[in-house]
Amino acid sequence: MNPINTTDLTAALQWRYATKAFDSQKKIDSTTLEALLETLRLTPSSFGLQPWKFIVVENPALREQLRAQSWNQPQVTDASHLIVLAVKEAVTVNDISEWINCLALTQQTPIDQLAPLQGMIQQFTGAMSADDMLHWNTRQLYIALGQLMTCAALLEIDSCPLEGISPASYDQILGLAGSGYCTKVACAIGYRSGLDKYANAPKARFPQEKIIVRM
Amino acid sequence: MNPINTTDLTAALQWRYATKAFDSQKKIDSTTLEALLETLRLTPSSFGLQPWKFIVVENPALREQLRAQSWNQPQVTDASHLIVLAVKEAVTVNDISEWINCLALTQQTPIDQLAPLQGMIQQFTGAMSADDMLHWNTRQLYIALGQLMTCAALLEIDSCPLEGISPASYDQILGLAGSGYCTKVACAIGYRSGLDKYANAPKARFPQEKIIVRM
Repeated sequence: MNPINTTDLTAALQWRYATKAFDSQKKIDSTTLEALLETLRLTPSSFGLQPWKFIVVENPALREQLRAQSWNQPQVTDASHLIVLAVKEAVTVNDISEWINCLALTQQTPIDQLAPLQGMIQQFTGAMSADDMLHWNTRQLYIALGQLMTCAALLEIDSCPLEGISPASYDQILGLAGSGYCTKVACAIGYRSGLDKYANAPKARFPQEKIIVRM
Repeated sequence: MNPINTTDLTAALQWRYATKAFDSQKKIDSTTLEALLETLRLTPSSFGLQPWKFIVVENPALREQLRAQSWNQPQVTDASHLIVLAVKEAVTVNDISEWINCLALTQQTPIDQLAPLQGMIQQFTGAMSADDMLHWNTRQLYIALGQLMTCAALLEIDSCPLEGISPASYDQILGLAGSGYCTKVACAIGYRSGLDKYANAPKARFPQEKIIVRM
């Protein structure tokens, strides 16, 4: 049996919305939070390279600082947790090596059997400009954002993706500056406030005819 | 009660893997397929702009042509369905208008109440270079890819994201060339073959300590 049926899945996605007002008194319990962090960790990425770090910010003082760099959006401080999604700017030969080692260890495969894969990834990434690589890695990060928001909805956790932030300021505040990782987007997670006027608005989407083509 | 508990959610994500060999005899039933297309349609995007089209390719002849433009990867022809994710290259003033109309109609809001939002989106997108806009829209598309793979796993549908394709050739074959939409990535969906040697490999991911930071 599927873990969920199509009706409940669709209902969960309909229930989700970009929550503008969170209930600042309600915290996500640790079991649920750890499950959400695990969904981030399990996110698929190109070649499995996982070019990212996820910073889970609970500290109120830090979040006040971040809010000031986020057009003062209250979600940053009022949600249960703020997750900052940072991308690894460049995938280096060392990063590829680290990934191949992880793969070999997990799958108990002799490392020399993975040499062709390693060579292929090196060739592919080595042919990219720094800009192209940053864009590529950032696209992978958005898979994680998608998986996070979907999984949150399934656990009845509200979320709000936040692109309207100052990434450079986030990097300074979170100590990412100069680390090889940089902030790209954030996601507030928690529980909607009963006062959020958007909570009961019907979900607006283009009809299938506009966006789905069958061939 | 949540539609799913944390244990089942994590198990579904552990079950998922980038399926290399699909059972070409097993087709996704129409209820499940429609639910997956609905998850695409419900994907969140920045300002709700939905800058995308999803092409669901079932036609075997077309898929043979696409496979030839995909390093001959068998997933392209053998999976139950191939979904091609195409991005809208530019969000125009007309696109914004269409979205605002959709929002007004769905939420039964007088259109002039949405004028400030419309102006804000116009200002934001108007300040972007063509390149930046394409990258921004493509990142949104990867949220859809993430939501699709996650939801598929929850319905016990296998998937394989495919970046190793020739987007320009896909555009020609699918009639997208010159349409303002262009192929960015594809995703094969269906059922794993019993012969896929990767199906039972332990999932390899970096440990939480490497990618999750708590503050």
